[in-house]
This record gives sequence, C-alpha cells and structure tokens, in this order.
Amino acid sequence: MTGYDRFFSNLASSMRASDIRELLKLVEKGDVISLAGGLPDPRSFPREAIAEIAGYVVKEYGEKALQYSPTRGVAFFLNAVRDFAKRHGIEVRDGDGLMATVGSQQGLYLIGRTLLDPGDIVVTEEPAYLGAIQAFRVAGARFLTVPIDGQGLRTDLLEERLRSLPEEEKKKLKIVYTVATCNNPSGTTLPLERRRHLLEIAEEFDLLIVEDDPYRFITFAESEATPIKSLDKAGRVIYMSSFSKILAPGLRLGWLAAPEPIVTKLELVKQSIDLHTPSLTQYIAAEALTRGVVDQHLPRIRRLYREKRDAMLAALEEYMPQGVKWTKPIGGFFVWTWFPANINSRQLLARAIEKGVAFVPGDAFYPNGGGENTARLNFSYPSPEEIREGVRRLAEALRDMLG
Amino acid sequence: MTGYDRFFSNLASSMRASDIRELLKLVEKGDVISLAGGLPDPRSFPREAIAEIAGYVVKEYGEKALQYSPTRGVAFFLNAVRDFAKRHGIEVRDGDGLMATVGSQQGLYLIGRTLLDPGDIVVTEEPAYLGAIQAFRVAGARFLTVPIDGQGLRTDLLEERLRSLPEEEKKKLKIVYTVATCNNPSGTTLPLERRRHLLEIAEEFDLLIVEDDPYRFITFAESEATPIKSLDKAGRVIYMSSFSKILAPGLRLGWLAAPEPIVTKLELVKQSIDLHTPSLTQYIAAEALTRGVVDQHLPRIRRLYREKRDAMLAALEEYMPQGVKWTKPIGGFFVWTWFPANINSRQLLARAIEKGVAFVPGDAFYPNGGGENTARLNFSYPSPEEIREGVRRLAEALRDMLG
Repeated sequence: MTGYDRFFSNLASSMRASDIRELLKLVEKGDVISLAGGLPDPRSFPREAIAEIAGYVVKEYGEKALQYSPTRGVAFFLNAVRDFAKRHGIEVRDGDGLMATVGSQQGLYLIGRTLLDPGDIVVTEEPAYLGAIQAFRVAGARFLTVPIDGQGLRTDLLEERLRSLPEEEKKKLKIVYTVATCNNPSGTTLPLERRRHLLEIAEEFDLLIVEDDPYRFITFAESEATPIKSLDKAGRVIYMSSFSKILAPGLRLGWLAAPEPIVTKLELVKQSIDLHTPSLTQYIAAEALTRGVVDQHLPRIRRLYREKRDAMLAALEEYMPQGVKWTKPIGGFFVWTWFPANINSRQLLARAIEKGVAFVPGDAFYPNGGGENTARLNFSYPSPEEIREGVRRLAEALRDMLG
Repeated sequence: MTGYDRFFSNLASSMRASDIRELLKLVEKGDVISLAGGLPDPRSFPREAIAEIAGYVVKEYGEKALQYSPTRGVAFFLNAVRDFAKRHGIEVRDGDGLMATVGSQQGLYLIGRTLLDPGDIVVTEEPAYLGAIQAFRVAGARFLTVPIDGQGLRTDLLEERLRSLPEEEKKKLKIVYTVATCNNPSGTTLPLERRRHLLEIAEEFDLLIVEDDPYRFITFAESEATPIKSLDKAGRVIYMSSFSKILAPGLRLGWLAAPEPIVTKLELVKQSIDLHTPSLTQYIAAEALTRGVVDQHLPRIRRLYREKRDAMLAALEEYMPQGVKWTKPIGGFFVWTWFPANINSRQLLARAIEKGVAFVPGDAFYPNGGGENTARLNFSYPSPEEIREGVRRLAEALRDMLG
C-alpha cells in the first residue's frame, strides 16, 4: 500500500504531534536541565509500601482484583475515595456519584464527549491546562479564555465577557474548566471570594464548573483553598482529582464526583472506551488509602516539593533581570513567568537549550493564541541544585536576548 | 438545579443503558445459573505468580513502573509482546508499530475515532462482537453485516454484497472488523481459504481489516487458524489482542500491531483520552511474559476451558430438542445457538430465568436488527456441572415454548 491517508477520520487527519513536545523529547536525552516536564519526583512514591500492597491485594483479593469490574469503579476503591475526600474537606453530596478514571485525563476526555458538541464553548483560564485543551478540542469545543493575575482566573473579567456575549453564543456556553488550586501551568490559587463569584456566574449563565484538583493535597501553606465543590449548593460542580501526585502516576488512577445524572452518562461513554479502569490499580490505591499510607505519606511529599518550590523562587529572585514577573505558588508543581513584552519564548527556548536548560513556552497553554512572552517552569522533578542552576542558565539566555 | 439534559452532547443524549444488561445484572445476584456473562474463570489466573511479580516489579523497576510512561507503551512491555507474538505465529512486520491499550476495548475505540467519520461503513459478522459495535457506533459508523455459518463470516456473501454496493457507498467503506478465531459471540473459526479470500476482498475494495484476536491462545485443537495478519503482505491488517483471557482481565491490558502511520495517529488520539496505559500493569505483564509465566500457564487454561466446552456441547446434544442448531467452537468462551424460527429469544429468556438459567439473546449482536431466534451461551465462567444443569433448564424452557 502506498498510504493510509484515505482511511483517517477528520479528527485524526487534523491531529499533529506537537513540535514543542518533540523538541523537548530530544532535549531530555541530553545533559540539559529540564524545567519543562511535569513529572513527580520518584522519591515521592511510597515504593516499599506499594510493593507490599500490590502483592497483598493480588493474594488477598485476587479473584476480584484480577477480574473484570464495574465501569464506574470498584466499590472498595470508591468507598475509600469517599472517605479520603471527606477527610480533606471535599464535600461529596448525597446526590453525587463517584467514578474511577484512567487518570484525570480520562475524566477530561469523558467530560468532553459527554457534555460538548462541536462549537460548544468552554470557559477557562488563560493560560490553561494543556491536557484539558486537548481533550475538549477533540470534542470540537471552542474556548472563551480569561486572563489570570497572580491569584488565578480574573472572575471580574469573566463576568464582563459573558455579559457582552451575543445571545446565540450564550446558548453555546456549557462549562467553566478551572484548576483553581496550584494551577497547572500557572501555579496560582484562586481566593475564596473568586470561588464564590465563579459559582454565582455559573448560576447566572447556567454553566457547569469542572474543578480539576490534583494539587490540593500538596499545598505547603494553610490556605483558604476551599474546594469549589464544597461551596456549591446547586449541583453545578464536577470535581476531579487524581492519585498521580500523591501516590504514583504509573497507576493512572483518577476519580471524579458529580451529580448522579452526569455520572450515569459518563459511565455509558466510558463503557465504549475501555469497559472499566483496571481493577488491580483500584485495589492497590484503595488498600493504600485504607491503611493510611497516602495520608501518612503526604507530609513527606509536601516537604519535598516545598524545598524545591523555595529553591525556584529564591533562584528567580537572585538571577532574573528586571522586568520579569512570576507567580508565587502555595503548592503544586509549577511557576509561571512573564518575560518583558519583546521577548518571544520560543526564541528564548532555543537559546536556553544552548545554555543547557529547557522549559515550556507559554503560548502552548493559550488555546486562542497569545502568551508569546510567557513560560512554564517545573520544580517538581529536578533537584534543588538543578533548579538553581537551571534558572541561572535561563536568566543568562534571557540577558543575552535583552542585549 | 432541576435537570442536566441541556448540558449533554448529542452522543450522550443518544446513549441508553442496555435493558438486557440491566436485567442480567439483577439475575446474576440470584441463584440463577448464568450462561450470559463473558468472564474468564478466576481459576485461570496465575494468582501466586502475579502476586509475586507485582511486588517484584515495583521493588525492582519502581522508578519507572510507578512513573508516567510513553503514550504508545512501555518499551519493556512492547518488546516482550513482540517476542510473544512471534512465538505464536503472529507476524509483526518491519513497518509495523506496536501499542499498549487499556484492554482491547480501547483499541476498538481508538480505531473508531481514528478511522471512522459519521456515516462511514464498517463491515462485520452477523452476529458481531458487542464491544466493537458500541465503539464503532459512538464514532457514528454504519454497519454492513454479513451472515455467518458454522465456519464464521460467509466471505462469498461479503464479496457479492460489496459488488452490488452503489459507488457512493463504496467510498464510505473503511474497515472489515472480524473476530476470526473462536469468535465472540458465535464461537466460529474462519477457515484458511476464507482468510485469504478476505484479504483479496480488502485489496479489491481498498479496505483495512481489523483482526480482533483475544482467543487465539486458548484454542483446544491443532487448527489452521493462521492469523490474517500473518497472511497479509500489503499492510492492510490492524491486529489486536489482549491479556484478559490468558493472564487477568483486571489488568485491562491489550495491544495492537498495525502499520506505523496508523499507530502514529492512534497514539495522538490516545494521548487526549488517557495520556497512556498504566505503567504498572505493563510492567507486570512484561515480567510475566519474560519469565515464561504466560506460556507455561496456557496448557492449564486450555484444559480448563476445554472441559467446559465439552460439557456444554455434550449437554446441548443430550437435552436440546430437534430443530436447534449450535456451533462447535475449537476454543474461546462461547457457543452460538439457533432456535427454531418461531422462537423469540427474549421471550425465551424470561421463561429461562423462571427455570433458573440466563443467557444473552442473540439480537443484541445484530447491529442492523435480526437474530431474534438466536442466543449466546457462555461456558468459560460456570462450572461443568452448572453448564450441564443450565443447558438442561434452558432446554426445558424451550420445550415449554414449543408446546
């Protein structure tokens, strides 16, 4: 055969590998310090405990842990998650259903397929999480993006923009997607009053809020980051989280809580995608939750990432030239930087790689374009020494460009 | 909020829980013998070996087995699968890519999203695998179905039907989907000459063949069931298989081999769905393959299911009234039955449940309707004694209806 193009769907034909992703793949093989990735530090995995638990659940529950299981999830897992959520102030309501997903990414994809038709509008931060942009884009969504400041989504601007939207467009509005706590990519955390404002906006414009919340459990400061879900009295919030940052991403295990009629539909869609989330990984996480392994382990993870966050903020302070701004995350994995307006991050990346450091140019996180002078810096994976040296090299590349 | 209907996509709005599935869920809680399911016998899981391996891979490879991994799959797993395929006569070509999927179901879904636009035509057996019908239906596919006989797809009829198709419709033809070996639901195995014929037809009408092959490894007879993939010189076959029947379905681990340009697109689509298949389950399967656990274990699984298949065929022979026909599987999980033309299987099911036995009415496997007098009987899960008693009860219900 000469080619397969005639066989591809419109969706597949439109998809291309990201040039930045391909570039970064190459870079990560060399001795370049990468502030580009988004991986947890492997030292954060409670490896001995997981090894023991993995063997145990197969021996103890093998007949079920190795068998097909319900599309919605294993009862042992869903019950353990319900208790975990409660301990952490995430209010799962009586009318809510819980569901296991193959990572949070699958939750996003399911939401896209279940709620969005081509042309529907998703409201989100600018910059926004790339995985969500992808999942909603393959569903054919358009994006209404709202700038952030150091505290995240500008809900005042959101309200303005929604008010000025033509009526026909208002009908296309379906969801607000937000990572309100320790945002990826921006590292911002939305203050309580903006969370309340967001719920008011959802009520006025008849929107659902998708609260994607994987970083809640690794915040370093006492904060008022009450889950939007817990403030919601009307049943407008789909809450999603994950064990990727607090247990191990290799389990690919996420979960969501949403009003039962929504979960019922998500479940039907999931059935066609993979029948169900692996039983074994659900048993492992459920056992880890039940034994208290996850909760006991959290302080250690927080210390680990706090040290790295501190290293990055200190290095930015020390090395960055005037005119550069950055966020001050209370947790999570990322710091967002705004370079002077005349700096193009993709050009900066080329120079930075020569100097021996990589990052993700911020425009990748702008679904409607923009953000050419911004960047996402990761502090979860590199060591404090690498972070310090990486930021030093980046500042050097930047000074070169500023001339 | 009063309701969520306004938020659902057209896809979600169109989806309903299957009435038969819901009915069978209820039944399986009672003391009804179920010939309805499709579960492997838990005694087929090499539980001790998996327990040991699960602990081992976390200890030994934890840094990678618990970490994010490539969308296409973990190299250790893909290499082990390549060797396994080779040992079992499945020819992965030089220009092919391999990919890990969250069960074969995800392979089907990815193929649907990557190859099919609404209105495109999928050719398949009548009856056809329900999971494939679902996955292709959510992609908007139409089905051109071809009757089977005791040897599976009637390729002569397929050729006829394709020839008589209007030119406009021919352009909509994309794939032939087939479970050629120990078919689910029919238990048939396609003879070598029909496999060759299918490849000729694919060439003539410019089609891809999706060969879904989870039962290959549990055939009980020396057979000529050469993979269509291994007969294909042109690069027209997407080959899929799974560890659900030979290791454990709770891992939810499938794989596929296809020409590289197709795998490249499948990978891009998968990235938006779940980033990647769990690393841990891939490490477990890879280690089990590498140690020889899977291959050493196959003879035991074959004996287990052969005994059950024999029990079902003997019971059908003994109890079924004249006018009932059934297939004689050389392996797999299922026997297909044709009742006399005046018997409606859904009515029969109601009576059968009263007598204490359940099965799946065959019409569920006919995407274009039909098959009202047919049924799928499962022999993999119930014990030989249950199979015998279940078939006896079913025959009794049938005799009552025949009057």
